[in-house]
Amino acid sequence: MLCVGLDPDPARFPAGLSTDEAGIERFCRAIIDATADIACAFKPQIAYFASQGAEGALESICGYVRETYPDVTLILDAKRGDIGSTADHYAREAFQRYRAHAVTVNPYMGTDSIEPFFNPANNPDGGGVILLCRTSNPGGDDLQSIVSSDEHGAKPLYVHVAERTAEQWSQLGECALVVGATYPTELADVRRIVGDLPLLVPGVGAQGGDAGTVREHGSAPSGRGLIVNSSRAILYASTGEDFAEAARAEAERTAAKLSC
Amino acid sequence: MLCVGLDPDPARFPAGLSTDEAGIERFCRAIIDATADIACAFKPQIAYFASQGAEGALESICGYVRETYPDVTLILDAKRGDIGSTADHYAREAFQRYRAHAVTVNPYMGTDSIEPFFNPANNPDGGGVILLCRTSNPGGDDLQSIVSSDEHGAKPLYVHVAERTAEQWSQLGECALVVGATYPTELADVRRIVGDLPLLVPGVGAQGGDAGTVREHGSAPSGRGLIVNSSRAILYASTGEDFAEAARAEAERTAAKLSC
Repeated sequence: MLCVGLDPDPARFPAGLSTDEAGIERFCRAIIDATADIACAFKPQIAYFASQGAEGALESICGYVRETYPDVTLILDAKRGDIGSTADHYAREAFQRYRAHAVTVNPYMGTDSIEPFFNPANNPDGGGVILLCRTSNPGGDDLQSIVSSDEHGAKPLYVHVAERTAEQWSQLGECALVVGATYPTELADVRRIVGDLPLLVPGVGAQGGDAGTVREHGSAPSGRGLIVNSSRAILYASTGEDFAEAARAEAERTAAKLSC
Repeated sequence: MLCVGLDPDPARFPAGLSTDEAGIERFCRAIIDATADIACAFKPQIAYFASQGAEGALESICGYVRETYPDVTLILDAKRGDIGSTADHYAREAFQRYRAHAVTVNPYMGTDSIEPFFNPANNPDGGGVILLCRTSNPGGDDLQSIVSSDEHGAKPLYVHVAERTAEQWSQLGECALVVGATYPTELADVRRIVGDLPLLVPGVGAQGGDAGTVREHGSAPSGRGLIVNSSRAILYASTGEDFAEAARAEAERTAAKLSC
């Protein structure tokens, strides 16, 4: 159930690690090795690599996860979204260049921005798409909570996204939704709409969401379908040389709360 | 008024150009040199570089525009959008690594996903943010046209984005909006809401929007504030060795329609 987010910020690296691309790779590999038997997924956040010009480290880390821990899911957190001809290239970036099992996508541009992620020419191994629905951040309210009305009643934008994913987009291929741990009521709403569809739930740990509450509100009828992400609380559990051991201990604590 | 989009797709390169990173760079430089005195802006689309592992070429092209054509605006088309701590890194990617004057951003995650782009630590030269409002693609309808009602009447989601940009987000720093040429009525609606705020209008050329119609519906009260993008119609005007001359001719035709 636990996804370990890989957000390598050199400004927060433990003492003794270099802050260049080699340091980024060493940091991520140490976290991966320390938590791979606890995590169901790793989720590198591409912005942390892109700001440093460290795409080579990201390629290497993704390849390492795929080769060394074949049972762990690799999620590229990129929140892409663009017209079809451009989305072709974002899909190839995620599924071919970085060999991700799934990629996060922003739904604002609609169906034809999502379809190319399922085109076998871009995604030969049937990778999944994880659409933003109700995000964990405070500004998530600004657009996602705008309420519209139709003959079936009033519904906020994120409910439209959940319904359209359940009814239409998940027919294109494997879909999941992002719903923040910081909004447990909305998490329960989305779960009612989407049945057994997987939910990726960020916001546990540094953002303040509670793992037990997430399990209660977000578990699927099957008891599965929940992937809970923690990034900073695990990555930066210690700034000392014991950072990997501390990350493992924090990952174990979070996983225990999720499985109680 | 004309922005030339740089979407280098090796599958469509003219004969004689290699399809590797060196070819991508050569193709883009040739287009830039052929159109720089006609264009007010160049807009590299990062997906085309990311799918090829060609970030080095993108860095080089961006540096070339900044050094060689200092009066031309450099827009990084990346459509980023994420929580604040991640948005810090996307902002550094756009403004520091690629030295863009402005970057496109997806508003779905709200205010705190936009603010970091204006933080001087990420954006020391006061670069701008161009928010997606009403995109040019068919799927733009799916979420952007969902209508909500309040005491002031019914409004679609893209109008919320336009209003919030005019009232709030443009107070943070330089803002503009993306409104597709393929929706002239909506373009006029947005122009009424945002006054003199710049609009970046894609969808002229390969996507079917008409330059004259865009000028009529999108020009600001000042007569300015309109940046019209064409990518594929210019880039792939010819598949022969004359591709750069053909691109220049097509750019001239589009610019003429815009200034009539």
